[in-house]
Amino acid sequence: MKKGVLFVAFGTSVPQADKALRGLEATFEKSHPGLDVRWAFTSNIIRHKLAKQGRELDSVTTALSKMLDDGYTHVAVQSLHTIPGEEFHQKVLSVVSRFSGGPGGFRQVTVGSPMMATDADMQAVTAAVQSSIPAERKADEAVVLMGHGTHHSGNIFYPGLQWYVAQKDPNIFVGTVEGTPSLDTIVAELKDRGIKTAWLMPLMSVAGDHAQNDMAGDEDDSWKSVFKANGITPKCVLKGTAEYPEFAAIWLGHAEDAFGRLAQ
Amino acid sequence: MKKGVLFVAFGTSVPQADKALRGLEATFEKSHPGLDVRWAFTSNIIRHKLAKQGRELDSVTTALSKMLDDGYTHVAVQSLHTIPGEEFHQKVLSVVSRFSGGPGGFRQVTVGSPMMATDADMQAVTAAVQSSIPAERKADEAVVLMGHGTHHSGNIFYPGLQWYVAQKDPNIFVGTVEGTPSLDTIVAELKDRGIKTAWLMPLMSVAGDHAQNDMAGDEDDSWKSVFKANGITPKCVLKGTAEYPEFAAIWLGHAEDAFGRLAQ
Amino acid sequence: MKKGVLFVAFGTSVPQADKALRGLEATFEKSHPGLDVRWAFTSNIIRHKLAKQGRELDSVTTALSKMLDDGYTHVAVQSLHTIPGEEFHQKVLSVVSRFSGGPGGFRQVTVGSPMMATDADMQAVTAAVQSSIPAERKADEAVVLMGHGTHHSGNIFYPGLQWYVAQKDPNIFVGTVEGTPSLDTIVAELKDRGIKTAWLMPLMSVAGDHAQNDMAGDEDDSWKSVFKANGITPKCVLKGTAEYPEFAAIWLGHAEDAFGRLAQ
Amino acid sequence: MKKGVLFVAFGTSVPQADKALRGLEATFEKSHPGLDVRWAFTSNIIRHKLAKQGRELDSVTTALSKMLDDGYTHVAVQSLHTIPGEEFHQKVLSVVSRFSGGPGGFRQVTVGSPMMATDADMQAVTAAVQSSIPAERKADEAVVLMGHGTHHSGNIFYPGLQWYVAQKDPNIFVGTVEGTPSLDTIVAELKDRGIKTAWLMPLMSVAGDHAQNDMAGDEDDSWKSVFKANGITPKCVLKGTAEYPEFAAIWLGHAEDAFGRLAQ
Repeated sequence: MKKGVLFVAFGTSVPQADKALRGLEATFEKSHPGLDVRWAFTSNIIRHKLAKQGRELDSVTTALSKMLDDGYTHVAVQSLHTIPGEEFHQKVLSVVSRFSGGPGGFRQVTVGSPMMATDADMQAVTAAVQSSIPAERKADEAVVLMGHGTHHSGNIFYPGLQWYVAQKDPNIFVGTVEGTPSLDTIVAELKDRGIKTAWLMPLMSVAGDHAQNDMAGDEDDSWKSVFKANGITPKCVLKGTAEYPEFAAIWLGHAEDAFGRLAQ
Repeated sequence: MKKGVLFVAFGTSVPQADKALRGLEATFEKSHPGLDVRWAFTSNIIRHKLAKQGRELDSVTTALSKMLDDGYTHVAVQSLHTIPGEEFHQKVLSVVSRFSGGPGGFRQVTVGSPMMATDADMQAVTAAVQSSIPAERKADEAVVLMGHGTHHSGNIFYPGLQWYVAQKDPNIFVGTVEGTPSLDTIVAELKDRGIKTAWLMPLMSVAGDHAQNDMAGDEDDSWKSVFKANGITPKCVLKGTAEYPEFAAIWLGHAEDAFGRLAQ
Repeated sequence: MKKGVLFVAFGTSVPQADKALRGLEATFEKSHPGLDVRWAFTSNIIRHKLAKQGRELDSVTTALSKMLDDGYTHVAVQSLHTIPGEEFHQKVLSVVSRFSGGPGGFRQVTVGSPMMATDADMQAVTAAVQSSIPAERKADEAVVLMGHGTHHSGNIFYPGLQWYVAQKDPNIFVGTVEGTPSLDTIVAELKDRGIKTAWLMPLMSVAGDHAQNDMAGDEDDSWKSVFKANGITPKCVLKGTAEYPEFAAIWLGHAEDAFGRLAQ
Repeated sequence: MKKGVLFVAFGTSVPQADKALRGLEATFEKSHPGLDVRWAFTSNIIRHKLAKQGRELDSVTTALSKMLDDGYTHVAVQSLHTIPGEEFHQKVLSVVSRFSGGPGGFRQVTVGSPMMATDADMQAVTAAVQSSIPAERKADEAVVLMGHGTHHSGNIFYPGLQWYVAQKDPNIFVGTVEGTPSLDTIVAELKDRGIKTAWLMPLMSVAGDHAQNDMAGDEDDSWKSVFKANGITPKCVLKGTAEYPEFAAIWLGHAEDAFGRLAQ
């Protein structure tokens, strides 16, 4: 029996973001001396970009293949995605199921879910959102979380989270770049309520391209610009969720759970 | 090539509910002359109950096995569940994947998702909810949908739906028997808004045991009784979603889609 | 935990042959009180034929589905085929692999191999062949075993068995109806050696259609007729291997082995 | 659509043997311009040995993972093993089945069988054996092929091949290092027939460790020594089957077949 852990992120080529991901690894390894966390990135684009810079990052398939070759028998795979969407279902779950059981496969593979899955996760995420809001934000100022959004059915976690956060603070809003709720809906709601200031925070593990450009960029269609154009003062926080201990703790909790489910 | 369709419901032993399910079958077969829809129920309890009454209902596994034996090569499986929760993932998706491809399996199996999955579904469900509200309900009266709720991550569709319906009508509420949002949350919200009357409607395909007892029963802990005890007049509508053409159309649309994806 | 056993035969519609198969079942159940052996037939033709006579025999898929529905968690599947050929690979192994592990599957399924698989099996089969030869056969008379033969790579077990039996008795020959070695090869060999009498015995579990017609029929191209036409006196033994305790013991040994591998 | 080919050998660290394998690749690529054959070795020991020499050879799992990452959609996998034994079933077939179909898998994977599988293969191997016998061998001298042998049921191909070659030349014998027929059986048979000289040839793709030591080594228990000790003059041919165009053509024919079965 040889136990291992594979952390799977969408991936990033931004050094600050990469540091955030490595922080998760360091924390996990600290509580499991001798365990060597392996990594896979699900984004082909990021992997190819990094390969050109001389950094070889594996897909989940290749990472698991190498772990098989290296003699691992029991592996906990932790998804560092935000929701169980396409990346999680197609590039984590489907791939993992190929490596489970039977001749030539791992004896056991467990999967830790993304940040949001169960009701308990939603409550933990809500608490993490509240604790990560900058101290200077006033109660009548909005906090707008910018999620990625997806055409996948997993998009429901964004409107779902909206319900959870509103239970605690009616001025926290959840929007998405590519899904529902849209920026338009949120701007309309803020104007409707007469809100003058909005704190924009990425609901993504790393403050990468989306946070820097779609959210806080100077282009006319960035969230910052659109809020300004609608008379709402934007205040951007360029920090990914993986950089906050409260969010990190949710993923690490899932990883501990997945690791703990491996046969003793 | 022999194409078939399998409708999969949780199951019911209530005659009126069974009639609603058969209505879906009749509608589908009408637009596909010559096609014989087969059925499976995912609830072991319901199947055993029916077996004692002399009605043999198959599990998904047995239904697909019989279709294999009967020479079907391409099958569209339509889930008649409300959300993609445990029943859908464990008793539909997992089972279907065992029968796909390879020697001895179907050449193709497609799966139609439950009522709620994509953003388009959520909008369709919202419209169906609005159109199914009794005409006599006044705007300041609440409409409370009673969903089943689950410990599975699919529970997020209930708070998610809450966001969608609230966009259209702030007095529609989504609650669940076993998940989140809970009855307590809804009662508190209604009292907070000073709402005096609430229309209770099951968000379940059939008005079975949960609708008749948990929602509209005379026990002290039924939703009807709890609303009354909190000074809110309950008005119960004992009709499952499968009985409304607008909800039925969503499942049938998914079935058409799954059937259309079969190789031509 | 609920353990079960599934015996899988090609199938037969001949009463005497069916009795032979049931004999295997009786023997197994005798040493496992309380265990109820289930059956599946891999031949679609036989199953359809029996269905018309009002006898419902399941395919492996349907038999395993019913066992799942009936709550079995650990199942030993015993193939009663002669060689690991197409029936075994496509209709037993492939199907069984669909039901193993994962949500909704058996916790464990073991498979007992056909009569011939390992070197130990080949030696056991050789001994069983020797002990089943009628006492009146003289050493200079040939014993010709008629196997089915197949285009599948599993056909190699027939020329392979030829080597094993020849090590013990140079006048035992293995031929096949549809594969290699062919009847022609054997007739040539017998004539070459000047053998005047040949005992014909089916190397098939049951003395069904092939034994009665291809081997012992009166048609010109039956083995009996061809031997006669070549000046060799044929003596036909119309008894399937399942009717001999020595051959039956091989399958039952495999079944015990498969059952014993189920988790305790 | 991107088509690829993966050649899978047990593996070798002997330069001459490696050259033989590369010869197969060159021949295949010549008839498929633009196609880049990839390689995997099934032997962990060989891969680790080569890794220490700085040569990275992939397992089948890792090779297929890399092909997935590199965008291949349709892959023909050719086993360069001699028989369908454990290496083929556990390290080729089982692994390949994990990568076939479904989300994240290849759209199609075909598998070319080892050298020996069908009746046609056995005839081709028999012809290849005959044509590879050194011209100076006389008819009353034995040719003894040394196969690997296995506890796996695939061992039957060795006694099976014995039948095929004996049909053409009664003085060709098939033995194995670890299975049946054993060296003892062959020595006894040769002495029985009064044969004085035996040509020893490996029935293995490469003349590696087994050929050099078990067959032609100077140790007392090598085949060469045992023959000598029994009064039979051994003449060793240190050449693997992959070095003979006649044997190579069998594998290449299987590879063409597997490649041809990929969707056009």
